[in-house]
Amino acid sequence: MEIIITMTRIFLILFLVDGLCSSFINNEVLDCENYITKSLKQEIASYQPIVDKIINETVNGCFKSSTYNELAYFVDKFGYRFAGTDNLENAIDYMLEKSKLKKLENVHGEKVAVQAWIRGQESATLLQPRRQNLPMLGLGLSIGTPPEGITAEVLVVTSFDELESRKSEALGKIVLFVPEYISYGKTVIYRSKAASRAAKHGAVAALIRSITPFSIRTPHTGMQSYDANVTKIPVAALTVEDAHMLKRISDRGQKVVVNLKMEAHFGDIKTSRNTIAELRGSEKPEKIVIISGHLDSWDVGQGAMDDGGGAFISWNALVMLKALNLRPRRTIRTILWTAEEVGYVGAKQYYKDHKNETQNWNFIMESDEGTFTPYGLNYVSGNRGACILEEVVKLFAPLNATSSLRSDYVGSDITLWLMDGIPGASLLQRNENYFWFHHSPGDTMDVEDPVSLDKNTALWAATAYILADLKEDFPRN
Amino acid sequence: MEIIITMTRIFLILFLVDGLCSSFINNEVLDCENYITKSLKQEIASYQPIVDKIINETVNGCFKSSTYNELAYFVDKFGYRFAGTDNLENAIDYMLEKSKLKKLENVHGEKVAVQAWIRGQESATLLQPRRQNLPMLGLGLSIGTPPEGITAEVLVVTSFDELESRKSEALGKIVLFVPEYISYGKTVIYRSKAASRAAKHGAVAALIRSITPFSIRTPHTGMQSYDANVTKIPVAALTVEDAHMLKRISDRGQKVVVNLKMEAHFGDIKTSRNTIAELRGSEKPEKIVIISGHLDSWDVGQGAMDDGGGAFISWNALVMLKALNLRPRRTIRTILWTAEEVGYVGAKQYYKDHKNETQNWNFIMESDEGTFTPYGLNYVSGNRGACILEEVVKLFAPLNATSSLRSDYVGSDITLWLMDGIPGASLLQRNENYFWFHHSPGDTMDVEDPVSLDKNTALWAATAYILADLKEDFPRN
Repeated sequence: MEIIITMTRIFLILFLVDGLCSSFINNEVLDCENYITKSLKQEIASYQPIVDKIINETVNGCFKSSTYNELAYFVDKFGYRFAGTDNLENAIDYMLEKSKLKKLENVHGEKVAVQAWIRGQESATLLQPRRQNLPMLGLGLSIGTPPEGITAEVLVVTSFDELESRKSEALGKIVLFVPEYISYGKTVIYRSKAASRAAKHGAVAALIRSITPFSIRTPHTGMQSYDANVTKIPVAALTVEDAHMLKRISDRGQKVVVNLKMEAHFGDIKTSRNTIAELRGSEKPEKIVIISGHLDSWDVGQGAMDDGGGAFISWNALVMLKALNLRPRRTIRTILWTAEEVGYVGAKQYYKDHKNETQNWNFIMESDEGTFTPYGLNYVSGNRGACILEEVVKLFAPLNATSSLRSDYVGSDITLWLMDGIPGASLLQRNENYFWFHHSPGDTMDVEDPVSLDKNTALWAATAYILADLKEDFPRN
Repeated sequence: MEIIITMTRIFLILFLVDGLCSSFINNEVLDCENYITKSLKQEIASYQPIVDKIINETVNGCFKSSTYNELAYFVDKFGYRFAGTDNLENAIDYMLEKSKLKKLENVHGEKVAVQAWIRGQESATLLQPRRQNLPMLGLGLSIGTPPEGITAEVLVVTSFDELESRKSEALGKIVLFVPEYISYGKTVIYRSKAASRAAKHGAVAALIRSITPFSIRTPHTGMQSYDANVTKIPVAALTVEDAHMLKRISDRGQKVVVNLKMEAHFGDIKTSRNTIAELRGSEKPEKIVIISGHLDSWDVGQGAMDDGGGAFISWNALVMLKALNLRPRRTIRTILWTAEEVGYVGAKQYYKDHKNETQNWNFIMESDEGTFTPYGLNYVSGNRGACILEEVVKLFAPLNATSSLRSDYVGSDITLWLMDGIPGASLLQRNENYFWFHHSPGDTMDVEDPVSLDKNTALWAATAYILADLKEDFPRN
C-alpha cells in the first residue's frame, strides 16, 4: 500500500487515512426501507446457498490453502518485485501464463510506462560520538549522495514545528526527524516531506525514524516526494531504535555525526503491465465488477503482505469461481496493478486508458491493507448501495464476517474511480499489526496465514459474484 | 542470558529451562507455622515502612527513572559489550569509576581470563533457485569458512530425528535445521548442537532458524559447542522467515544452494573483570547477600535487555540504598559478571576464587531474563527459607509484586552456587516477549521501560536489604 498520490487532477491529498481507515462517514442509521425493496432484500438473501458453497469450497474444500500455496510459490520464486525491474515483468508473465492455464478469460497485460528508480548500495554510519553501523533504507525516489557519502552533524527534531523553531541550526546538517508515532496516516507526512522541509533550511540530507509503531531493528522504506521549490537532498529511514538512540545522545548535548551513502538514482523508462483476467458475464458482459490488488512491491522482503495477499485473493477468487462454474450475469474482472508503490503508476494509466468504459463499472474492490482475519467489508457507496451491501454482509455469517463500515477511503489504486463516484469496497480485517511489517524486510510469507487467506478469498469471491449477478446494476452514489 | 553451561563438574545440563522457568518444584502448600515463628513473621512485617520508603524513593522520588537514564547513557556510550573486546573493558572501567563516584564500598574489579572469539565479516547468500542475500548471524565459538565461503546444496530438516532418518543425504551438504519453536528451553538444543549433529553425517556447514517465537526478519545469535568427537564445521542462524522459505522451496523438490562466508576465529586470551561494589554490613560485614547481572553482551544490538537491565537494577539498588543511608546488618554485594554470554566465564572464575568465603553467603540473586514489569520473586530455597520469602513478598503490595514461585532454576551465572545449596532468587516479571529481542540486533533501549526498571530496582533493593538485615542468617536449604 502506498498512501501518497501525486495525480495532478487530485488536489485532495489522501492523508485522510488514520491508522487504516479514518474519517468515516458517520455510520448514520439508514432506514433501508426507504432505499431498497423487500424483493431486493429477498433476492440478496437467496444467494446464501451460493455463498455457502463458495465458503465451503474455499475454506474446507479443494481450494483450501490454495491461495496461501499459490502466493508462497510466487513470492518464493520471484522474491520482491520492484517497479522498473525485469523481475517484476517476469512475475507478470508468470501470472498471465498461469491465468491462461486456469482458463481465465480475456487474459492480457496492459502497458504502463514506469520510470525506474534504483536503490543501489547504501549505508548510514554513526561516526560521533562512536562508530556504529545504522541499518537504513533510502526512501523512494530519493537522489543519491556523492560516492564518499555525506558526512555531517545531525540535528534531531521531533516535529516540523521544532524544525521551524530551530531552522537556523539546520544549515549544512543532516536533519533527523523522530516524531512520535501517532498513526500511519498522521505520521507518514514525516516520510513524504522530510527531505523538502529539511532542504528548505539548508540541510544537506534528511533522515527519519521508520514509520512503524513497533520494531525489532528493521528499517521501513516508502515513497517521498520533493517540493518543486527546494533543493533535492538524499533522504532515508533509520530504525526506530537507532533514531531514538540518536535523539537521546543529542538530548544529552553530545554532537552526533553521521555518514550517509546512497547510490540511489533514476534508470530508464521501462514498460510494465497491469495484469487483467476476467470471468465474462453471461447476460451483461460489458458491465463490470472489479477485484484487485497490486503485484509490484517494494525492493525489500518478499512483498507477501503488501500486496501479494491482496493480489492473490483477487486472482484466486476468480480462479475458484471459474472452477465452480459460477458465472454471474456481469463480468468480474481481476486487475493486478503494477507500480503501485512508486505512485499508483499502473492505476493512473488504467484510469486514462479506460475512461470510456467506466460508465459500465458497477463496483470496484481492492485489497491492499493486508489479508489478515476478515470480519466484513469497508465500503464507499451512496445510501441505496449501502443498504444493498448491508444485506450482502449478512450472508457472511459462516465466516464471522458480517460487519460493515461505510467510509470515504477504501483503497489505494482504486481511489481515482471512487472519487468519480464509482462505489467500491475493501476488506475489514484484523490488520492491527500491518505496519509492523509494511515496506520492510519483514514483509514475508510468515505474515500470511492459510486460513485467513482462504476466508478473504471466499469473502472476495462471494461479494464480487453477488454484485455481478444481481438483477439490477449496483446503484451509483 | 546464556543457557548452555559447560562446567566440567556439572553433568546436569541446564536445559531444564522451559520458556523461562520450567521444572518447578511443585508449589506444595507449606505449613509455615512448622518452619518460622510468629516473631520472625512479625520481624519481617516490621520492614514495611522501609520497603515503602525504598519503593517511594525509586518509583516516585529522586531515583525515579534513574535506572533507565543510567542504563541508556551506558548502552548509548558503549553499544554492545562483547567478551574479549577493549570496549567491554572500557565499560567495566566506567562502572568502577561511577561506583566510586557514588561512594559505593570495596569497589574493585576481579580478573578473569577470556578467550576472544571474533565474528568478522559474514554473509549467507542463496544461489539457487534464485539469488538473494540471507540476513544471518554466526553462532558463538563457530569456526569460520575459507575466504571464498562454502557453497553447497542445502538439506532442510525439521528435527534431529529427521536428520538421522536422512543421514545418507547429509554428506557434503549444508544442513539447515528448521524446528518448530516450542519454547526457548526446548528449541535451543538446535542452536547448541546443530553443527555437531550435522558434522557427524558429513555436512560441511550447518544453519538453523533463529531461536525466537517471533521475528521481523532479525537473526538471533547465541552459543553453540562442538562435540569432542566430530569435525568442527561453521554454523550460523538465519532469520525465521528465510529458514521457512528455504524449507518451502525444498519441500517443493527444488534444489537449494547457499554460499556461507564467515571470518569467525579465535583471538588472544584477554583479561576481563567481574565488577564488584558493596554496602558493607553494620554488624556482620562478612556475611553476604549478592545482587547481580552481567555487564557483557552479544556483539549485536545494545545489550540493553540482556543484560544491561539486570546489571543496572543490581547496581542502582546499591546506589539507592547507600544514598538513603539504609545500611543493613550484613553486606550487600553487587556483582556485574563478565563474559557470561560466552560460557559464564566470569562466574566460573569467581566461583573458584571465592570458595573459601561462600559459607558466609546468605542469599544470591541474579536478574538475567529481562527487566519487564515485575510481579514477585522466583526463588530456590529450602522450606524454612521459602516461608521467609513468602512473608517478604507480602511487603511488595505497593508494587503489585506479591507473587512467588519456588523453582529449581533461577539464574545463569549464579547456578553454580545454587547447586551448592546456597538459596537465591530472580525476578518474576512479564517477560513473555523476551525472546523476540534476545541475542539479536533488536536488543536495544526500546525494549526497556523506565517505570518497570524503577519497580525492579525497588524490588531488588528491598529484597536484598531485608535479607541482609534480618536478625538471623537466611537458612541454607
